[in-house]
Amino acid sequence: MTDLPLTIQAIKKAYAAKTISPRELILQLRSQALAQADFNAWITLLDEAQLEPYFVALANKEMDELALYGVPFAIKDNIDLAGVPTTAACPDFTYVPELSAPVVEALISAGAIPLGKTNLDQFATGLVGTRSPYGEGKNVFNQEYISGGSSAGSAIATALGQVAFALGTDTAGSGRVPAVLNNLIGHKPTKGLLSTRGVVPACRTLDCVSIFALHAEDAAQVLEVAAQYDEQDAYARVNTYANKKRYFGAVPSSFKFGVPDELDFFGNSETQALFQKSVEQLQQSGGTPVSISFAPFIEAAKLLYEGPWVAERWLATQNVKLESMLPVIQTIIGNGNNGKASDAFAAQYRLAELKRTCDGIMQGLDCVIAPTMPTVFTRAQIGEQPVKNNSILGTYTNFMNLLDYSATAVPVGFLSSGVGWGVTLFGNAFTDVTLLSFANILQRANATNMGATAYPLEQVSSSATPCPPTEIDVVVCG
Amino acid sequence: MTDLPLTIQAIKKAYAAKTISPRELILQLRSQALAQADFNAWITLLDEAQLEPYFVALANKEMDELALYGVPFAIKDNIDLAGVPTTAACPDFTYVPELSAPVVEALISAGAIPLGKTNLDQFATGLVGTRSPYGEGKNVFNQEYISGGSSAGSAIATALGQVAFALGTDTAGSGRVPAVLNNLIGHKPTKGLLSTRGVVPACRTLDCVSIFALHAEDAAQVLEVAAQYDEQDAYARVNTYANKKRYFGAVPSSFKFGVPDELDFFGNSETQALFQKSVEQLQQSGGTPVSISFAPFIEAAKLLYEGPWVAERWLATQNVKLESMLPVIQTIIGNGNNGKASDAFAAQYRLAELKRTCDGIMQGLDCVIAPTMPTVFTRAQIGEQPVKNNSILGTYTNFMNLLDYSATAVPVGFLSSGVGWGVTLFGNAFTDVTLLSFANILQRANATNMGATAYPLEQVSSSATPCPPTEIDVVVCG
Repeated sequence: MTDLPLTIQAIKKAYAAKTISPRELILQLRSQALAQADFNAWITLLDEAQLEPYFVALANKEMDELALYGVPFAIKDNIDLAGVPTTAACPDFTYVPELSAPVVEALISAGAIPLGKTNLDQFATGLVGTRSPYGEGKNVFNQEYISGGSSAGSAIATALGQVAFALGTDTAGSGRVPAVLNNLIGHKPTKGLLSTRGVVPACRTLDCVSIFALHAEDAAQVLEVAAQYDEQDAYARVNTYANKKRYFGAVPSSFKFGVPDELDFFGNSETQALFQKSVEQLQQSGGTPVSISFAPFIEAAKLLYEGPWVAERWLATQNVKLESMLPVIQTIIGNGNNGKASDAFAAQYRLAELKRTCDGIMQGLDCVIAPTMPTVFTRAQIGEQPVKNNSILGTYTNFMNLLDYSATAVPVGFLSSGVGWGVTLFGNAFTDVTLLSFANILQRANATNMGATAYPLEQVSSSATPCPPTEIDVVVCG
Repeated sequence: MTDLPLTIQAIKKAYAAKTISPRELILQLRSQALAQADFNAWITLLDEAQLEPYFVALANKEMDELALYGVPFAIKDNIDLAGVPTTAACPDFTYVPELSAPVVEALISAGAIPLGKTNLDQFATGLVGTRSPYGEGKNVFNQEYISGGSSAGSAIATALGQVAFALGTDTAGSGRVPAVLNNLIGHKPTKGLLSTRGVVPACRTLDCVSIFALHAEDAAQVLEVAAQYDEQDAYARVNTYANKKRYFGAVPSSFKFGVPDELDFFGNSETQALFQKSVEQLQQSGGTPVSISFAPFIEAAKLLYEGPWVAERWLATQNVKLESMLPVIQTIIGNGNNGKASDAFAAQYRLAELKRTCDGIMQGLDCVIAPTMPTVFTRAQIGEQPVKNNSILGTYTNFMNLLDYSATAVPVGFLSSGVGWGVTLFGNAFTDVTLLSFANILQRANATNMGATAYPLEQVSSSATPCPPTEIDVVVCG
């Protein structure tokens, strides 16, 4: 363990004070990752020779010029890092990309250093973290429990303080479920904000690259660097002016947040109590709760796995033999090509109607709060009911990309088993920074140590006061 | 024949001068429509009793309050008019709607009077106008030739001066092909601008209600009234501030327009010459032609009928027995449910890529000019090759809704057979009024009589100078 809290601010401060160099820090963290291998966070850790070019590249750079100078990060192993195998947790699928995904390239260009590629539910198909031939992801607080997935390793590595942040992907909840189970912020950006080129598709119309961080401000900082419009990604979208890091913390002193009228915690009184507490905390921070009809959101969520979108997973894995997949993935993807084109269109019609309804419900609200997942499971429980319990975890995450919302999962406390739990704040597309600002309020109201580290949130925090703009966008005509 | 050119301005002027009353005009036009029944324009003409309530409704209204006071129009018979059968040109499909489609309701509320419901290619599936059990639509200039379709009757009725304007629908070109064949403006609005509720779907994700008018300004006026955001239509979109009638005529003195680098006129030297002349006319009006790569547009066009979107037509007619359809429609729609959901998604991926490419090509252009269709056909030729020749007509229209463009078909002259021909100006979504303004320039450059009437375009035209805003949108706070 390093004696440094792995926040961007703390790392850069330590570099500035020369108490540690990027090389020293990264190699220490690499050793730590090797020592904590039993959590099954990593599929590939870069070796010293592979890391060397990153240290060299930083040597001639000024720290002030690079937002993520020497900041260690992890990459889910369905996102390309040049020269390093991409497995998607399926050994037979493995290829070595020549180029990094643009989103990875953007982070590296800003000074960030990748420690390696992290474990996942095979083909990002799962919310559990146990569906991998590279070992089951284990919860950082209680190894009998799931880490959550599919971005299991990215969450574990961040929570254990092996990296400052990590990239995941989030189609159905894969960036949110493992975040709160391991006491992290998990931000699922607006669709199209982060390039998905160089990412192994799950459902290409819905896929997002997501961000794990120890606190909301770091997530906002990583988002700022990672959100580069990629004109070669057909699903890329241009960010809006107001959805930038300089607005982080800029929340109104009074606001309205939606609270679902009906929630099922599947009998878990602990998660129910934590949810209630979170609602109260938002109220204490100036929020007025507004009860909202949640049935249309839930209906949209069900469309994801009961509807035709699984055909996208089938399309994404056409070149892989079914026998190369884990049995549970074989079952899901193997049935992926049964639907008709007419089913796809009919479901899209229904989704368009539901979106109209849900957008109407959300009008006038600053955000909506929902449980990230109703309850939690041990790895054994997932082994017994691999599909059913996986589905339960997605109850409140599956609708998000279908309805084109942005979402931030916020850790709000721990269960008696020791594992983390959290809520999700969600809103319309391009409200990322607002959601992260509300997440910041909630995370701080519940301040614990960050992730599974020994460092409290307060120690490294900046204030939640809005930063004044340090740059102004101008239009030059003529 | 009335002795009144059927433009909105001329009609209202005549009413103001009391040279004719709405009742007198409408009943004259009804008689004219009956007398011209051999063109097969109408499926249902309202009788005097059905028209009476419209006359009564106008009696207490001030003409100045109603943009379309007493203006006669036609409704394609796949759009609901309360209390009148909707057939979609399939007798077994017929139903009598209780409510009018919101787009019809908006026109009636503005004072317009429906003469009845017009003939179409069955289920709006066709670009020929011959696919109807209610008789083949005939070209107003040469009855041996097709009227074009699917909005055959709406075009015929407008061109013959039986109505001032007509509603069509346009999924693949149905509002553009019959327009220019009959010397009319055919405007296919931005998707979602006009409600498609109460319209029999063809491809619900692509369908548009379209407008036929004698000249561009009337089309702009009808668009202004018809484009009412319908929150109950899941595909409705809110119009932009700049896409309003008050901008009609507001075109820059110099502009850039795209010209496809490769065009196939299928051996027709007459259409090729007219196209070339239109390009030159736009140049003479201040336009700079820019050669653009057209292959990606053509690839998108092919997706429509060779791809999975035909599944939408199957979905729309699930409750109709195949035997109830014309043989050619049976073939098309009967094969509509063969595709897989994975085909639908794969085609949507390709379309997203093509849209990105095409949008890039169109950047920096004020509009693009293309032939509305490469060549024209007699009704006999369509009878001999009903599918192939229909496809040829859609060569340059099919991509428009898939790529989310707005388009105005403009008549630019006549072929030696006597029938009209024209070009299409297209641009990004929400450029409707700009396109209509360019269309106005081009139509006036080729000024002939309007439609098949005895009235020249000049006689009733207002200038093409931008009208100063007569109203200002204000926001009232508090």
